[in-house]
Amino acid sequence: MTKFSQVTPHSPHTKGQKLYIIKVGGNIIDAPEQLSLFLQSLAALKEKVVLVHGGGKLATQLAQQLNLPQQMVEGRRITDTETLKIVTMVYAGYINKNMVAQLQGFGCTAVGFCGADGNAVSAHKRVQQKEAVADWGYVGDIDSVNEEFFIGLLQQNLMPVVAPITHDKKGQLLNTNADTLAQEIATALSSSYQTILVYCFEKKGVLENAGKEDSVIAKINKTIYQSLKQNNRVFAGMIPKLDNAFAAIDKGVQSVVIGQAEELNQIILGRSGTVISHE
Amino acid sequence: MTKFSQVTPHSPHTKGQKLYIIKVGGNIIDAPEQLSLFLQSLAALKEKVVLVHGGGKLATQLAQQLNLPQQMVEGRRITDTETLKIVTMVYAGYINKNMVAQLQGFGCTAVGFCGADGNAVSAHKRVQQKEAVADWGYVGDIDSVNEEFFIGLLQQNLMPVVAPITHDKKGQLLNTNADTLAQEIATALSSSYQTILVYCFEKKGVLENAGKEDSVIAKINKTIYQSLKQNNRVFAGMIPKLDNAFAAIDKGVQSVVIGQAEELNQIILGRSGTVISHE
Repeated sequence: MTKFSQVTPHSPHTKGQKLYIIKVGGNIIDAPEQLSLFLQSLAALKEKVVLVHGGGKLATQLAQQLNLPQQMVEGRRITDTETLKIVTMVYAGYINKNMVAQLQGFGCTAVGFCGADGNAVSAHKRVQQKEAVADWGYVGDIDSVNEEFFIGLLQQNLMPVVAPITHDKKGQLLNTNADTLAQEIATALSSSYQTILVYCFEKKGVLENAGKEDSVIAKINKTIYQSLKQNNRVFAGMIPKLDNAFAAIDKGVQSVVIGQAEELNQIILGRSGTVISHE
Repeated sequence: MTKFSQVTPHSPHTKGQKLYIIKVGGNIIDAPEQLSLFLQSLAALKEKVVLVHGGGKLATQLAQQLNLPQQMVEGRRITDTETLKIVTMVYAGYINKNMVAQLQGFGCTAVGFCGADGNAVSAHKRVQQKEAVADWGYVGDIDSVNEEFFIGLLQQNLMPVVAPITHDKKGQLLNTNADTLAQEIATALSSSYQTILVYCFEKKGVLENAGKEDSVIAKINKTIYQSLKQNNRVFAGMIPKLDNAFAAIDKGVQSVVIGQAEELNQIILGRSGTVISHE
C-alpha cells in the first residue's frame, strides 16, 4: 500500500493504474516492417503506455554520408557538436515523427517529444571521469523527470513517445542513453502509477542457455539472480541489464520485463519475456 | 460579441483571452545570434503564444551535403521521399528542438511538435493541378487543426512550438508551408481566443516605398488596401501575403501583423509592424 500513499497531489486519478514504459531499440527501428507491426500492436493496447525509443543505425549512417567519423565507447556515442546535430535530427526528428505518424495511422493519439519539450527530462553534461574517456561531449546524465508533464498527457489519453535527447535547462540539448531514460521515467512515475518497465531487445528474454532461443527464464527475483550468477548461468552481457532492472524495482518500479518487441501482446499478458520483480 | 458565442464547450476559460500566433521564417532561423535574442524576447512575454517556424536554409544545405538535388517552385520545395526525410529531420528535429531548448533556457516552458503529434494538424497530399508542377510529392495541404490539443497545452501554460510537418492520419508525414500552417492554427483557435497572427519577415512591415525601410504603413484595412493597390503603392511580392492576411481576418482572426522578429516587443505593444484588420 506504500505506493498509494506516495501519489502526488496533482494526480489523484492515476492511483493504482498500470502504466507500461516500453523501450525499443535499434534492432526493431532498423527493420521497417517489424517496426510497423510492433506499432500496430502497441496502438491496439488498452493499457496506458509511454514509449521510449533509441536510435538504431540511422544516425551512424547519416554521419557516414556526411563524412563525420563516429567514436563509440562501450556502445555509447561520443557526441561532439556535429554529432549532436545528427542525433537530434535522426532521433527527435526522423525516427520520432515517423513512429508518431504510424501510431496515428493505427488510431493511437501519440505525441512525440524529447526531454527539452515541456522540460520533460533534464540532465547535465556528463562529468569527465578518470577511468573513462577524456570527453564524452554533449552526453547527458539525467537529473530529473517532469512527472506532471507526463501525467498531463496520459490523463488526456495521449501516448508519449520519447526520443533520447534531453536538455540542461540552460539551452543545451544532450544525447542521453535510451535505456537509462526509460528507467528514469519509470522510476519517476512510480509514485503515481504501478509501473511496468519493458525492455524490448533481440531475444525473447533472459536465456538460461545463450545458444538456445527457447531457454527463456520466465521469472527472476533477487534470490534466483544470485543463484544464477553463482552457477554462471547468466550471459555476461545481461548482467548490467539485470543490475539496472533490480535498481529500478528497488526505486518503486513494480516489475521489469525483458523481451522481444514482436511478442508485445504476450509480454503484456505476462506470457512472454523474463519478468524481474521482488516477488 | 460574436467571438464569445463561438467559444467551444471544452474551453470555457479561454474566453476573450488574447493569443498570439507568431510565425518566424528562414531569415531569423539562419542567424543564430538574432534567433537567440528573438527567443529571449519571446520567453519574456506575458501573453499566450503559439510559435510556428519555417525551415531556413538548413534543409537545402543538408540536401547539398548529401548530394540530393532540390527542386523549388515559387519558393516551395518539391518533396520526394529523401527530401521528406531531410525536412522532417531538420524542421521537426534540429530547428524545433534547438528553439525549444533555448526557450527553456530563458525560462519558458515550450513544447515542440509537428502536426502528427497529438494529431495537431492533419493534411492531405497535394492533388496534382493542371497548371502547376506535375507532382509536388509529399507536400501537404491542411485539412484540420486539433483545437483541443492546442488549448490543452496553452491552459497548462506551455508554449507550443510547431514545425511545418503535418500528417495524413494514415501514417504519412507531409511537408507543409509554414505561413499557411500559422494561418490555419490562428483561424482554428479564433473560436476560443482573440487571435493575433504575427508574420515576422525581413522588413519592419509593409513598406509604402520599397526602397525606404522607414516607410512602414502602420495600418491597412480593406479600404486602404484597395486604394494602395489602385495607386500601385504595394510591392507586388506583398500582395499574396496581404490577401492571405485578409482571408485570415475574414475567418475570425482579430488582426494580422507583418513585422520584424527583432521588433517583437514593439509589435506586441502595437508600436511596430503593419496591422491588418477590419477596422
